[in-house]
Amino acid sequence: MTQPATTGPFPFSAIVGQDDMKLAMILTAIDPGIGGVLVFGDRGTGKSTAVRGLAALLPPIKAVAGCPVNSAAEGDVPDWAQVHDHSIVEKPTPVVDLPLGATEDRVVGALDIEKALTQGEKAFEPGLLAKANRGYLYIDEVNLLEDHLVDLLLDVAQSGQNVVEREGLSIRHAARFVLVGSGNPEEGELRPQLLDRFGLSVEVESPKDIDTRIDVIRRRDAYDRDQAAFLADWHDADMTLRARIVTARDALARVDADDSILRDCAELCIALGSDGLRGELTLLRAARALAAFEGDPAVTRDHVRRVAPSALRHRLRRDPLDEAGTTTRVTRTVEEVLA
Amino acid sequence: MTQPATTGPFPFSAIVGQDDMKLAMILTAIDPGIGGVLVFGDRGTGKSTAVRGLAALLPPIKAVAGCPVNSAAEGDVPDWAQVHDHSIVEKPTPVVDLPLGATEDRVVGALDIEKALTQGEKAFEPGLLAKANRGYLYIDEVNLLEDHLVDLLLDVAQSGQNVVEREGLSIRHAARFVLVGSGNPEEGELRPQLLDRFGLSVEVESPKDIDTRIDVIRRRDAYDRDQAAFLADWHDADMTLRARIVTARDALARVDADDSILRDCAELCIALGSDGLRGELTLLRAARALAAFEGDPAVTRDHVRRVAPSALRHRLRRDPLDEAGTTTRVTRTVEEVLA
Amino acid sequence: MTQPATTGPFPFSAIVGQDDMKLAMILTAIDPGIGGVLVFGDRGTGKSTAVRGLAALLPPIKAVAGCPVNSAAEGDVPDWAQVHDHSIVEKPTPVVDLPLGATEDRVVGALDIEKALTQGEKAFEPGLLAKANRGYLYIDEVNLLEDHLVDLLLDVAQSGQNVVEREGLSIRHAARFVLVGSGNPEEGELRPQLLDRFGLSVEVESPKDIDTRIDVIRRRDAYDRDQAAFLADWHDADMTLRARIVTARDALARVDADDSILRDCAELCIALGSDGLRGELTLLRAARALAAFEGDPAVTRDHVRRVAPSALRHRLRRDPLDEAGTTTRVTRTVEEVLA
Amino acid sequence: MTQPATTGPFPFSAIVGQDDMKLAMILTAIDPGIGGVLVFGDRGTGKSTAVRGLAALLPPIKAVAGCPVNSAAEGDVPDWAQVHDHSIVEKPTPVVDLPLGATEDRVVGALDIEKALTQGEKAFEPGLLAKANRGYLYIDEVNLLEDHLVDLLLDVAQSGQNVVEREGLSIRHAARFVLVGSGNPEEGELRPQLLDRFGLSVEVESPKDIDTRIDVIRRRDAYDRDQAAFLADWHDADMTLRARIVTARDALARVDADDSILRDCAELCIALGSDGLRGELTLLRAARALAAFEGDPAVTRDHVRRVAPSALRHRLRRDPLDEAGTTTRVTRTVEEVLA
Amino acid sequence: MTQPATTGPFPFSAIVGQDDMKLAMILTAIDPGIGGVLVFGDRGTGKSTAVRGLAALLPPIKAVAGCPVNSAAEGDVPDWAQVHDHSIVEKPTPVVDLPLGATEDRVVGALDIEKALTQGEKAFEPGLLAKANRGYLYIDEVNLLEDHLVDLLLDVAQSGQNVVEREGLSIRHAARFVLVGSGNPEEGELRPQLLDRFGLSVEVESPKDIDTRIDVIRRRDAYDRDQAAFLADWHDADMTLRARIVTARDALARVDADDSILRDCAELCIALGSDGLRGELTLLRAARALAAFEGDPAVTRDHVRRVAPSALRHRLRRDPLDEAGTTTRVTRTVEEVLA
Amino acid sequence: MTQPATTGPFPFSAIVGQDDMKLAMILTAIDPGIGGVLVFGDRGTGKSTAVRGLAALLPPIKAVAGCPVNSAAEGDVPDWAQVHDHSIVEKPTPVVDLPLGATEDRVVGALDIEKALTQGEKAFEPGLLAKANRGYLYIDEVNLLEDHLVDLLLDVAQSGQNVVEREGLSIRHAARFVLVGSGNPEEGELRPQLLDRFGLSVEVESPKDIDTRIDVIRRRDAYDRDQAAFLADWHDADMTLRARIVTARDALARVDADDSILRDCAELCIALGSDGLRGELTLLRAARALAAFEGDPAVTRDHVRRVAPSALRHRLRRDPLDEAGTTTRVTRTVEEVLA
Repeated sequence: MTQPATTGPFPFSAIVGQDDMKLAMILTAIDPGIGGVLVFGDRGTGKSTAVRGLAALLPPIKAVAGCPVNSAAEGDVPDWAQVHDHSIVEKPTPVVDLPLGATEDRVVGALDIEKALTQGEKAFEPGLLAKANRGYLYIDEVNLLEDHLVDLLLDVAQSGQNVVEREGLSIRHAARFVLVGSGNPEEGELRPQLLDRFGLSVEVESPKDIDTRIDVIRRRDAYDRDQAAFLADWHDADMTLRARIVTARDALARVDADDSILRDCAELCIALGSDGLRGELTLLRAARALAAFEGDPAVTRDHVRRVAPSALRHRLRRDPLDEAGTTTRVTRTVEEVLA
Repeated sequence: MTQPATTGPFPFSAIVGQDDMKLAMILTAIDPGIGGVLVFGDRGTGKSTAVRGLAALLPPIKAVAGCPVNSAAEGDVPDWAQVHDHSIVEKPTPVVDLPLGATEDRVVGALDIEKALTQGEKAFEPGLLAKANRGYLYIDEVNLLEDHLVDLLLDVAQSGQNVVEREGLSIRHAARFVLVGSGNPEEGELRPQLLDRFGLSVEVESPKDIDTRIDVIRRRDAYDRDQAAFLADWHDADMTLRARIVTARDALARVDADDSILRDCAELCIALGSDGLRGELTLLRAARALAAFEGDPAVTRDHVRRVAPSALRHRLRRDPLDEAGTTTRVTRTVEEVLA
Repeated sequence: MTQPATTGPFPFSAIVGQDDMKLAMILTAIDPGIGGVLVFGDRGTGKSTAVRGLAALLPPIKAVAGCPVNSAAEGDVPDWAQVHDHSIVEKPTPVVDLPLGATEDRVVGALDIEKALTQGEKAFEPGLLAKANRGYLYIDEVNLLEDHLVDLLLDVAQSGQNVVEREGLSIRHAARFVLVGSGNPEEGELRPQLLDRFGLSVEVESPKDIDTRIDVIRRRDAYDRDQAAFLADWHDADMTLRARIVTARDALARVDADDSILRDCAELCIALGSDGLRGELTLLRAARALAAFEGDPAVTRDHVRRVAPSALRHRLRRDPLDEAGTTTRVTRTVEEVLA
Repeated sequence: MTQPATTGPFPFSAIVGQDDMKLAMILTAIDPGIGGVLVFGDRGTGKSTAVRGLAALLPPIKAVAGCPVNSAAEGDVPDWAQVHDHSIVEKPTPVVDLPLGATEDRVVGALDIEKALTQGEKAFEPGLLAKANRGYLYIDEVNLLEDHLVDLLLDVAQSGQNVVEREGLSIRHAARFVLVGSGNPEEGELRPQLLDRFGLSVEVESPKDIDTRIDVIRRRDAYDRDQAAFLADWHDADMTLRARIVTARDALARVDADDSILRDCAELCIALGSDGLRGELTLLRAARALAAFEGDPAVTRDHVRRVAPSALRHRLRRDPLDEAGTTTRVTRTVEEVLA
Repeated sequence: MTQPATTGPFPFSAIVGQDDMKLAMILTAIDPGIGGVLVFGDRGTGKSTAVRGLAALLPPIKAVAGCPVNSAAEGDVPDWAQVHDHSIVEKPTPVVDLPLGATEDRVVGALDIEKALTQGEKAFEPGLLAKANRGYLYIDEVNLLEDHLVDLLLDVAQSGQNVVEREGLSIRHAARFVLVGSGNPEEGELRPQLLDRFGLSVEVESPKDIDTRIDVIRRRDAYDRDQAAFLADWHDADMTLRARIVTARDALARVDADDSILRDCAELCIALGSDGLRGELTLLRAARALAAFEGDPAVTRDHVRRVAPSALRHRLRRDPLDEAGTTTRVTRTVEEVLA
Repeated sequence: MTQPATTGPFPFSAIVGQDDMKLAMILTAIDPGIGGVLVFGDRGTGKSTAVRGLAALLPPIKAVAGCPVNSAAEGDVPDWAQVHDHSIVEKPTPVVDLPLGATEDRVVGALDIEKALTQGEKAFEPGLLAKANRGYLYIDEVNLLEDHLVDLLLDVAQSGQNVVEREGLSIRHAARFVLVGSGNPEEGELRPQLLDRFGLSVEVESPKDIDTRIDVIRRRDAYDRDQAAFLADWHDADMTLRARIVTARDALARVDADDSILRDCAELCIALGSDGLRGELTLLRAARALAAFEGDPAVTRDHVRRVAPSALRHRLRRDPLDEAGTTTRVTRTVEEVLA
């Protein structure tokens, strides 16, 4: 157990409510292969706070010192990186923000102009995707980004590879990260094709309940006024959660899923009419991560039931004859199919 | 007490009327964390005059000599700044204008082309955000700026950090300032998402009263004709205000806000249907700043009531069934909820 | 008295009719602080001729030799100008045309590419705003310029400062000039915000009267056929006007305006519903300049009455219930209010 | 027979169902002159998996070591390639992805900026079309590409030549590849002119049958969990298919097609009203490839019948009086004409 | 008298019909101050042929050898031209085509990149406007040019000065030329402001008469088959016309125009409602040129009557109550006013 | 007679049907002055095949070795070409494709960047128009090109001169070629102004007749399977056609056209209402080329009648009262007028 820090982001455990969002983030921390998380909801509901808090809570990663893509072992350091000292160091799990106005060249990396000008050499200068390797990439208001950039980020997140073919460069490097995007459903929708490529989605909203709101303000006020004390108060809760995540990661490979579970997943997706097979595959992985998180040896129908809304909500075709919201439709169908 | 200057901007205290605007600016001078001020209203109502006057009235800041971001201490000077002499000097509170046609590279900073060309070195040349650190950034007609630039400015103002990821640069520096924007509601609206990120908003209009208008013209005429004499006349009033602001800044951390106040804030926001929790948090901070300004040991319901219009007016959803203007709706709801 | 030149622009005094336009230009020659002049009307009505004629008639300015912004004294020469000889010379009042297709960098000034390339030095190359300092900037068809450029020109004209923040430059220099713009009301209107920032506006039209038109053609024909003779004929008239302007400039600071005059200005603006307070301030300054031009010791109601149309015509809100043209509305209101 | 690899793409033979797509890809592997394959259908139906699997299954190509266009013999190495060692090596059949955001210069090749800057030499830097020579070029969501780029790719695929006329370059090199494009018919259609230039088209959809879906998930899960074991399980099936393709390539030139077959092709196209003569030519080639694949000495009416939907479906004019889908129309017409 | 050339443009005198166009071009050859000629009409009616033929027929100009603006005397050579040998040579009257796709920098001139790169010197490279000085600038399909470029060309043509303020250059040089533009009234109209700035306008159409058309074809055929013989046939006619033009140029300054003529011009313009005074001034100049061409000592009402359609047709406001074409309206009004 | 080649384009003589297109191409091969050929019709009807076949069949041109514009004699080599060896060599008639995505600088030529960078010299690098001199320029889907580029190509094709005024270059060189454009009437029309500038136009369509279609497929199949044998089979037919074209070129200048023929041409154009006189001139030239091709000493009414549709079809104004297609209207009018 580490000592509490005196400064740091707002503790993940101290976030009031928002259980769906927190669970979705925990599951992708256990199995990043589940894919990105898309958070729908109003501004000011703590999305960015949650990402930062979760990353601060995760154990540090071990990486080659100075490696621009945080490689875990000497053999993974890319050729173009020119890293000569291969000692292994600990780093916090990276959280990379896509700042507004970041240009595509800074995202994917680009020709290193300085080297080109001074040494006549065509070197690669890694971008934000390199920095995010083995961590998180956070995009606020993903629906304000151009579709082609979102698509590119999803491509990289899914393949784990950043392929750069521009300016005479032909580079590829590992870029395995969890993409967390926040979106406001009132400002232009994402194309269904993009939605389908996020692993999980959750909806957050401001609490409607007075006492919860007061709690939020009180905790925020306490954090603003005496950060060290506040971090100390919540240190144990965060460390307990870290331990559970680490344990779950190890257990993941051993969690069984028998044919009846596969059938549940398939029947649910058919009943909901989700396109393609990404729905089933994500549902299975998320359910297995949940089982691991809860220390269960095998996936049960209950695990499937609980992650189904996050895994399927954003993959539904709009049904003009069914006025219920997508969350309601998923929940209702889960109840019918997995009764 | 300093001596009156012989030249300088129009004194803040000599501004006729416009009490809401003046109070909002004073509160953000006491607690810059309240966020920017958005001033709605016609041209020619003294918005720019007020910002300049307030900054001239505030005590000078102490900063490392030659530091491009006005760092208060040697340890805060950014690496890229290459400042070698770390003596501390006094500077007036900076007021930076965003001139029409300023390019994004001059706002956030950019690659220093001169150094790149002559020394083959990739140095950072700070922009207007660096200059504005610890002061004010004033944007006239904020609704004529592109949304993405406004968003960027609000991001920086809120985080206090300018993050530059472009042209192969990866730089960050402190950029804590109060953003003051003026807008004309007749020329295209700001998106609700942007509105929500300004701390306070006020409405100004030309005085309708003949004698007030004559006062304005007479004072302006006096200032134009004999600036030194005019500044001398208003020196005491400005210095008295400065003293109150300095005192309030010190007191701020000690001003209590008990749970009933938090409940008032939350109930007001729920009654008004403002999205997210920024409304409550801003309301609380502004009320506390007002209490500090008035020398009160704790926030009272009266403080909340008086700052509510400025803190909430721009966060209301449009209500198609309620034809009253937003100011009227806030005032009416305050009266009902905090009766 | 100087000798008549043998070549030169068409003499100001020889312009047939167009009294409003000529008076507006004279008043801004006496007090440039009145602001720019906007001339509405058809092509071919002598707008450009009038500006050139007036400038030729004004006394030469005294300026530091070689100073790119025509500084009056050594202390005013900007640092970047690298002027080493500070002797004072006489120059004609500058008249700068904004040629069609002039790029923004030539207007505000830009990085001196030649120096950058050959000496690796980031020097400033002044633009048209520098040349226009202490003189006139003439824009034909101001409504064909992009709003942001017009706005920029008005900003500079009003502040007297050209602030350049681009290409890594951060420069400011004096740029005090009278902006004269011509516009054709049939080709796209200026935004009210821009209109409001011009000091005076006048309407010109082709004379409808046969004999006047013949006069115009005859004088133009005479000028085209024997320029020297024509200039000699009109020399005395121009020199007499010059003397009156010079006298008026000196007298300006001593012309009184008592409270009843301020009240007249305010009541007139309220009655006309002009936004902001620019209307009153301009009206007062223009009336004072007229008083000075006519040798009167104080502003009278008659001065106010005579300059009111030029000072207020372009600041009126459109009134859907009043079909009269703006000039008619101003005149009628003047008669009612200042009866 | 080679040994199974321990890592590699999902085996082609292990793909569940999707017989039309698999057959179309096999036919173009036998005769690349058939032209590209356009795959319509939802995301997540294994299009990319199939291309990669097929290429991994094909025998390696023999190519000049280091040749940027994979030339089979020394004489084919282009001048600009500057390859000095002409030994022949084996390489896997290339599969090139067109990554989202790839710029046109990287697709067709471009001026080598590094050489231009450092050696003042105008060298050509080959692009993705060079890499794809003798292999596959895969474009996901071809309907999101600009028409002119699709057209360019089809031009090159058809002519087998990449002609570069830009930036002062005038280069041509072999670029023979099978273009595989996937498209979602719901996101903007391709122009008929582009459709016509794809050789074959197939429609894929998610299996509707529960057991098939479970099969898909189970196989994917098995592959994800133990790749080496899974590849070993499917090695024999892949090698058997490879042998059939190699045999069919050799046989292709000897497969006869008599006049009755030509007449069948022509009558079918006339009956379907397909424009131009590309339909007949493609139909004949595809039928001949199928005959070769099945070891038949001559093309029979049955071969024509079976490839007709893939060869003609995308060449039909929309018939407003016939509401049947294009696949249905082709099938029905085949039955009538080739009864 | 010179010898006929063996090759050259189609002779001006050999053009069949098109008298209005030919007269308008002759008048501007006598007095270039009349301004440009705008030719409305179908393609293939010989507009370009006429310009080229007229220029070939005019006497050669005397110019400083190598001067890029064809200066007549050493003193007129611009500083930037760096011409060292000032001997005077004869050159044909320049005819410059504005080729499609000519960039603005080639029209007005630009920074000489070669000198900038090799000698680090900011030299001016003159453009097409320099070449056209003292000759003709021909623009085919002027209505396809952007308005701002047309406006720029008209500005220069009228002022006789090319002012370049761009890329750090601040250059001016003589650019006196006759602008001849052709336009097709069916393809987008010119703005009235632009129309007004052309001196004369004419309408051309294909001859409707069979014999005239045969004449045109026969002469063209003859020219195509034996150019030398054809040029010889028409040499005398061309030389006679040259002599009349040269004589008229000399006489121009002595042709009187008494007040009754001025009154005629003014009354005609008032009756036609043409804006501004350009109509009268052009009408007077064109009538005087016609008088000179015909050897008359003074302008008569008949001269005015004959040039009125060309001088005024394009300056009429559209009259919704008068359905007659503009030519008809001018002719009718001329008959009424100058009866 | 040359020997048949073993590889080469599909023989012109082996093209099945499409007589109008083939005749139009032959006529422009005899007299390139007729102007370009525009081929309307579906894709896959052999347009590109025909151009390539015709060029391969024409006798080689004699040109200065290494001359970038294929100059026939030393004296024609342009200055900028820097060709030192002036021996004459034989080259095939050039056929230049305008590849999709060719940039304007590659079409007209551009500054040679390599020389500019390495030698500081402003040299011209010729473009596709230079390569096409004395041959063919083929543009597929001319209606997808921007109008201004089509216009530029037509300008050059007609004048025989490529005039380059850009990037500080001022170059002209011979560019005499036949422009062959294909267009699909369903994809956006060309402006009438552009249509009028093509010499001839033809319509092609897929054969509707089964046996013809089988012929096409059979010949194509034979060509694909054994190119050498197929070329040998058609060699004689191609050589016979070459001989007729060569003979016709020589005879062209001696083919008479008396006044009755001119009258026929003029009457036909008037009856059809074609604008301008390009119709007559093209009709005459095409009829003369046809007479030469058929060995006739003079143009007859029959020649005119046969080329009229190709020469006039694309010059007709749309007639809203006549629903017949343009081809039908030309044919009907020819029958009436030349009865």
